[in-house]
Parts: sequence; structure tokens; C-alpha cells
Amino acid sequence: MTERDKYFMGRAITVAQQGMTSNTGGPFGAVVVKDDQIIAEGCNSVTSTNDPTAHAEVVAIRKACAELKTFQLDNCILYTSCEPCPMCLGAIYWARPMKVFYGCTKEDAAAINFDDQFIYDEIDKKIDARQINFVGLMREEAVKVFEQWEAKTDRTTY
Amino acid sequence: MTERDKYFMGRAITVAQQGMTSNTGGPFGAVVVKDDQIIAEGCNSVTSTNDPTAHAEVVAIRKACAELKTFQLDNCILYTSCEPCPMCLGAIYWARPMKVFYGCTKEDAAAINFDDQFIYDEIDKKIDARQINFVGLMREEAVKVFEQWEAKTDRTTY
Repeated sequence: MTERDKYFMGRAITVAQQGMTSNTGGPFGAVVVKDDQIIAEGCNSVTSTNDPTAHAEVVAIRKACAELKTFQLDNCILYTSCEPCPMCLGAIYWARPMKVFYGCTKEDAAAINFDDQFIYDEIDKKIDARQINFVGLMREEAVKVFEQWEAKTDRTTY
Repeated sequence: MTERDKYFMGRAITVAQQGMTSNTGGPFGAVVVKDDQIIAEGCNSVTSTNDPTAHAEVVAIRKACAELKTFQLDNCILYTSCEPCPMCLGAIYWARPMKVFYGCTKEDAAAINFDDQFIYDEIDKKIDARQINFVGLMREEAVKVFEQWEAKTDRTTY
């Protein structure tokens, strides 16, 4: 951990504070860094943009990928003012930065009523035991599209 | 499960196929329905939009929320051509539709090399034991923004 890491985390915290103060959304900020330079910054924007997926990490990842013109954050570092929720954790694994620094813990978030534990618990449940009802339907028809993907010669994998 | 449910799932499967054929992204589609009407449709758009978060469910949820001008999918049903990955599962819990129908299973997806199990496994690991390195930093400074959120009188919760 270097002074530069502290600088970038300080920036993520500032972005969190600015987003909160401007009523862009909740008190969360994130910064994507590559080669020691900030590529993108994002704050939680759920309530101002009516986008439940607009968490700080997702916003910063989207912006960074747009900037880098790629769907992979190779050799990037994500600094986030709080430990990611399960959605953001999934987004991080799809984007594949090489490292993540986080400020607050999920326990700190739960203490101000951002309680991700419920979602962690639901993910671990069997699909038919969750609080939101998940029902399988028309698997046979749906699988045919997967077979066509397998046979497709010009597909771009990710 | 009704004939209408089959109709909407058929639509999600068609959207998956169209997205694949047009090289918009992988073979996944989703539809959001409210009051028996389609509010939004989305196909996987990761590779064409350079957005690793543009899975079919996330695209459909974003569009539906924009259409409904809300960050909550109250009384909506999501039809997705495949069981959601952990990121999409998180997005679903934040958007809170009342029910989800899915076509292919995650095992079907793994069979064509979309293996979410790795992410499910990582989520369950302790934060310092994951393949992507997660490091806590400056928690004390970061928590101050949470304290300001708690004291904020004009906050919009979500």
C-alpha cells in the first residue's frame, strides 16, 4: 500500500461525499486507476437516475470501460469507499480489475441501513427457496439458443 | 404458470436469439412485464457496448426503470432466458420485481462456457481469500461520509 493508493482512496471518499451532498444518490464513491492515472470516477446514482444498478462501482466500471474501449479492466485497480455489495462484486468479477481497495466494511454499511447481508443470504439459498420467487419455464426452447451459440462461427466471447 | 407467462418467456428467448444473431452480445434475453404488458426488453450487450455489466437482465431492468421513472420494479415480473448470474441476482434484489421466470439453468450456461459458479464460490470466500485481491484502506476517513449520510435531513433512501 503506497501513498498513491491513499490518494486514490481519498478521491473515492471525496466522490462519495460529493454524490451524497448533491443528492445524486447514496454515500458511495469509486475510482478506477490504470498506470497510476484515474480513468474513471463514479458515485452512487440510483435515486437521481432511476437506475437500481447505478452503484458507485458499477458506474465507475462502465465509465472506465467506455474510456478504455474494452469490456475488461486489465491491469486496473478499483478504489471504492465501501466494500462492494453482491451485485457490484459480480460486476467486478466480470470486469476483472487486478485489485480492489475498499474503505468502509459491509458492517459499516449495514449500520446505516444499507444491509447487503440479505442479498448474500438469498444468493446462497436454493433457487426455489428464495424470497423472490424463481420459477423455471421452457428450458427446452431456451437451450436451443445456447446450441446455436455453440455452433456460431463469428461469436465474440467474453 | 399461464399461457401469458409462456408468451413472455418466448419473447425473452427470441430477444436472446436476436441479440446473438446481430452480434450484440451473448445468447441471453430478458423481458420485464407489468400489468400483463411488456415494459422493457434487453439482450446481452457486453461486447457491442464495451459494458461488462450489460447482461440481459441488467439491460432490461435499467430500461424498465427508465420507462417507469422509478428505481423499484414493484409488481413487475422478470422473464429471463437463463438463470441469473450473481451480478444479475444482486440487481434483481435491488430492483425488487415480485417474481422471476428463467429458461436455461446455470448448468446449461456452464456447458457453453458461461460459468458463474466461479463467482458464486468467490462471493462465499472471506474477503481476504479471494482470487481478486481485496484490501481495506482508510476505513476511518470513509466512515465519516456514512456519518454525514446519517445526519443528512434531505436524503432519499432506496
